[in-house]
Amino acid sequence: MPELRKDPIIGRWVIISTERTRRPMDYKPVPEEAPEGPCPFCPGNEAATPPEILAYREPGSAPNGPGWQVRVIANKFPTLKVEGQVDKTGEGLYDKMNGVGAHEVIIESPDHERSLADQETGQIEKVLAAFVARMHDLKKDVRLQYLMVFKNHGFRAGASLQHGHSQLIATPIVPKAIKEEMYGARDHFRYKERCIFCDIVRQELDDRRRLVTENDEFLSIVPFAARFPFETWILPKRHNPSFEDCQPHQVPHLAAILKETLTRMNLSVSHPPYNFVIHTSPCNQPGPEWFHWHIEIMPRITRVAGFERGTGFYINPTPPEEAAQYLRQVAVP
Amino acid sequence: MPELRKDPIIGRWVIISTERTRRPMDYKPVPEEAPEGPCPFCPGNEAATPPEILAYREPGSAPNGPGWQVRVIANKFPTLKVEGQVDKTGEGLYDKMNGVGAHEVIIESPDHERSLADQETGQIEKVLAAFVARMHDLKKDVRLQYLMVFKNHGFRAGASLQHGHSQLIATPIVPKAIKEEMYGARDHFRYKERCIFCDIVRQELDDRRRLVTENDEFLSIVPFAARFPFETWILPKRHNPSFEDCQPHQVPHLAAILKETLTRMNLSVSHPPYNFVIHTSPCNQPGPEWFHWHIEIMPRITRVAGFERGTGFYINPTPPEEAAQYLRQVAVP
Repeated sequence: MPELRKDPIIGRWVIISTERTRRPMDYKPVPEEAPEGPCPFCPGNEAATPPEILAYREPGSAPNGPGWQVRVIANKFPTLKVEGQVDKTGEGLYDKMNGVGAHEVIIESPDHERSLADQETGQIEKVLAAFVARMHDLKKDVRLQYLMVFKNHGFRAGASLQHGHSQLIATPIVPKAIKEEMYGARDHFRYKERCIFCDIVRQELDDRRRLVTENDEFLSIVPFAARFPFETWILPKRHNPSFEDCQPHQVPHLAAILKETLTRMNLSVSHPPYNFVIHTSPCNQPGPEWFHWHIEIMPRITRVAGFERGTGFYINPTPPEEAAQYLRQVAVP
Repeated sequence: MPELRKDPIIGRWVIISTERTRRPMDYKPVPEEAPEGPCPFCPGNEAATPPEILAYREPGSAPNGPGWQVRVIANKFPTLKVEGQVDKTGEGLYDKMNGVGAHEVIIESPDHERSLADQETGQIEKVLAAFVARMHDLKKDVRLQYLMVFKNHGFRAGASLQHGHSQLIATPIVPKAIKEEMYGARDHFRYKERCIFCDIVRQELDDRRRLVTENDEFLSIVPFAARFPFETWILPKRHNPSFEDCQPHQVPHLAAILKETLTRMNLSVSHPPYNFVIHTSPCNQPGPEWFHWHIEIMPRITRVAGFERGTGFYINPTPPEEAAQYLRQVAVP
């Protein structure tokens, strides 16, 4: 059973693997290329993965065989396990708990080569619908406190397979970055009686220097205090605490702005590896009126993570206004 | 003038470069090898660097020429500038200030090839003494709130030159990671009337499963909730809020445990790139009784930084107890 451990000073939870633990000799240099052998995410190779939890498929096609457009499976090497209770125990001044949770993989299309940015908008809508469906299902599990959807694109961004996929990790705790946003947004709300994200949306739409693009429902910006060059955030224009409460009519707009933002990034900084993370409200409580879901997209084009790893202090060599200008001015087909 | 910008939601300050800003085409793949040409940090090439701020040199040798053992210079490409006032201004709901500060480089030895771990203990003492001397000097500048000493070792850890060096960045704000530790330690103190780091020292010396090594003054441990495999912390056994208030008789012990810890890491995980950061109390106030300086050493052997960059949520594939055992059992010459 994996273990969750809490840093006693700052309260950050860390997942400690206790099975398949890695010894010093198990750490290999980062691979820069796809592993050899058949791709387990390609149609026809469904038997190489755990059975599907959800799939959008052609009528009449059989589960765990070809004929799907989007396929969700359990991660073969999960960082958290579905079985068991959330036992919290102490060890002197330390706190830990069982690594109960879920770890799923969303295979974004049957096409091995095509990245998310290059999918048709309709296909991206299906991927987003799969995120929403899995989140609604996992929210029924009262042991889970948070549902984290993220994507590692490119080997240098942490992907271990080339075939386009996203991941969902469900945790029995709320991750630190989300807690910090919740607290910050709550303090702003108490003081101003307004959602801070709504304030950001208004100021960015008015100012426009950091705006990348917008449509009826969403906007994409380079945040004022971006940590990484060409970092972008996608926010809904209308207040909504939870991603999974996205309205059906909003999904096509989200697919379109996600595709356009990734395409503009690809064209501006020549297809960088990237991560994106959906920040949404924790489970088990109604979305608080002060939180506002959003997607943070972080291209990995700098070696920054020197001392930043240990200090939370970032140096961004491209001012957000300039990054936004590059992203805006690139011609999108 | 560089600019410091505050994230309006979570309060994290970021340095935005405004001179020498990098356009999309300026981002090159991470170099894995030393740049070509003569090393500016080698004796005889002193003219290639800014003039020295401090140097420990052979009696009679002239400044900015050979004959030094440790040499401190201003960073040629500083992230913060010494000139100017700390003007704080708003921009709608955002906050920013001038990038006032200092950015210095500590050249650790005249020897181009020898890494810090391979220096004689006496040479490491000189490096530590240079840290202390520069911190005492910079503390006189009332504009500065924090003095951050860190080291990037290896190109993959962010070093841009091979010749062993550390850095000191002085900032007009307290970095987020330090603030979090201060708040956490203060809360523990208010509740228990004890320093949480002293509690950790006691528990780890008693438990010993996560202990790497110890001497009269210091211990080196793998922290209970380590973020990274083979991460280690060095803490003074006696309570002391500020690194720069290290007593002269403690410095040889610190040099010895730093050398031994780095050597054990090098032998266990074959000379990984690494970062270390000294966590000390902020300036401009007496070190609070609840804080306890320490060094965090983070080897970079995993590709972890996938979604961790965006969530503050780490997965560590080597349990701290096992990592400590590997580090302990390796035979040190």
